[in-house]
Amino acid sequence: MNFAIGVDGGGTWTRAVVVDQDGQELGRGETEGAVVEAHDPTSSVEAVRRAVDRALMNSSLSTPADILLAGLSGAGNDVAHTAIEDALVKSQLAERIIISTDVEVAFHDAFGFGPGIMLVAGTGSIAWARRSDGTEVRVGGWGQHIGDEGSGYQIGMEALRCITRAEDGRAGPTALRDTILRHLGLEDIQGLVGWIGMASKREVASLVPLITEAAAQEDPVSKGILELAIQGCRGHLEAILEISGPWVDQPAVALWGGLLSSSSGPLHDEILSIVRDHGLKILGRDPDPALGAARLALEQGLSNRQ
Amino acid sequence: MNFAIGVDGGGTWTRAVVVDQDGQELGRGETEGAVVEAHDPTSSVEAVRRAVDRALMNSSLSTPADILLAGLSGAGNDVAHTAIEDALVKSQLAERIIISTDVEVAFHDAFGFGPGIMLVAGTGSIAWARRSDGTEVRVGGWGQHIGDEGSGYQIGMEALRCITRAEDGRAGPTALRDTILRHLGLEDIQGLVGWIGMASKREVASLVPLITEAAAQEDPVSKGILELAIQGCRGHLEAILEISGPWVDQPAVALWGGLLSSSSGPLHDEILSIVRDHGLKILGRDPDPALGAARLALEQGLSNRQ
Repeated sequence: MNFAIGVDGGGTWTRAVVVDQDGQELGRGETEGAVVEAHDPTSSVEAVRRAVDRALMNSSLSTPADILLAGLSGAGNDVAHTAIEDALVKSQLAERIIISTDVEVAFHDAFGFGPGIMLVAGTGSIAWARRSDGTEVRVGGWGQHIGDEGSGYQIGMEALRCITRAEDGRAGPTALRDTILRHLGLEDIQGLVGWIGMASKREVASLVPLITEAAAQEDPVSKGILELAIQGCRGHLEAILEISGPWVDQPAVALWGGLLSSSSGPLHDEILSIVRDHGLKILGRDPDPALGAARLALEQGLSNRQ
Repeated sequence: MNFAIGVDGGGTWTRAVVVDQDGQELGRGETEGAVVEAHDPTSSVEAVRRAVDRALMNSSLSTPADILLAGLSGAGNDVAHTAIEDALVKSQLAERIIISTDVEVAFHDAFGFGPGIMLVAGTGSIAWARRSDGTEVRVGGWGQHIGDEGSGYQIGMEALRCITRAEDGRAGPTALRDTILRHLGLEDIQGLVGWIGMASKREVASLVPLITEAAAQEDPVSKGILELAIQGCRGHLEAILEISGPWVDQPAVALWGGLLSSSSGPLHDEILSIVRDHGLKILGRDPDPALGAARLALEQGLSNRQ
């Protein structure tokens, strides 16, 4: 085996990591998001290809790799899984292609094949746990329409709903009105109705920094929206702890996703203290899902050779 | 003038009423809903044509009428307004076509050119008022993504969200889970995620009877969902009263839409008592928007001849 490639494709980023047969990182590249669309996996494949090209840029390696494992948001859906698998096989980026989800590869980076709990809050939200006996359970992850509590998408949507209610006089005014209209280049709330009819989940979630800034400046509506998101994350955490338990040794919790990142996640500190209030250990670093994917690829490749 | 046609096209029904030049009803017909889609008004036009054909079925009249006024849900949007207007002109159902909204024609039936307040809760929701000086104001009507509080769409969406939360153990169990899965012919909650990704606003709102039945059988989750919808309607009512006031004489309130209908609306009684608690008069009948459209057509036609 010459080298393996791991890919993490979420709503915001697609990242690729190249490793040698000992799991040592040889290169890394990133490009825009690549949520899998079942009816057209083309843009996902192109994002994966660009990230891989960038990861190989400063090395003497060239594709096909021995194996590529891609953990992609949206690939939990069977139809999407098959569509992206077929398309990546045709891409000839590697001799062997394995499709997984972004959550699974992040979890692998955090806990390997061991037990643990991962709370995810980025564009979407989900909680995932592996018990000591190896069985896995999840909470949330029901998608933007009827799930994603505590996610960036929920924060963005709540902001827009609060703006319309304020416009009507059904709720107090909020600084978000002018900030968000200006950010989107819209004249009025009617324009917002048109925008939201076309906006992607990622575009809605990209409003989060406007809400965290307004909250930092004491906008009460924005503070309420963030509090709602914190309660959403808390709900996921408490439910996953309940259904994955009872635990003999308290499990470690990994926090992942843009809202929970230790460097810049706006909800990181609050969720960290909720985790500690539950007497749980915290994984002392952010998961590196692309590296998790690369190492999982290696495990698969090696175990196949035995 | 031989005859005028009024059309009311909402999420659930398209109704047409034919009147003579004195405003006397000559016929009436109905077919499925006809919310205007800007990119393709064809299905709206076909629904209008079918409703008109049925209204004329037992008369000796035939199109083109002198004038047709269609109050269509979705026609408040400029692009959609133009698209449906062009398409109806080509349809040759009448010498002259006027496009309005379903809310406007319902309001006209309720209050003519006079003042009043109309609270709407059907597939969507909105409140509309005309002050004594003739100026008009609205509350809500921001659409399914960031508005429609107190609507059938909101009730349906909340039901699905409660089901996913219950499935995770993030909230108490609800009878809605089995009822709704069975109703939709789905095996599990994952199927629900697929369904909601494709479902129309009307399909979501059509779940309402399942929730009202479960509430009648004391399902606490369903009762909570209906209470949330009542608060949504209350919010619309109180805001429209505030921004349309101060009123010298307390205005009458018309209740319209499937949730508020006096014969079968599941929220009718609760909202009626909220209206009375505010010391407001109630319009003693359900608006007849297609007749309102026909009479408005007549007014337009006659005033043009003078």
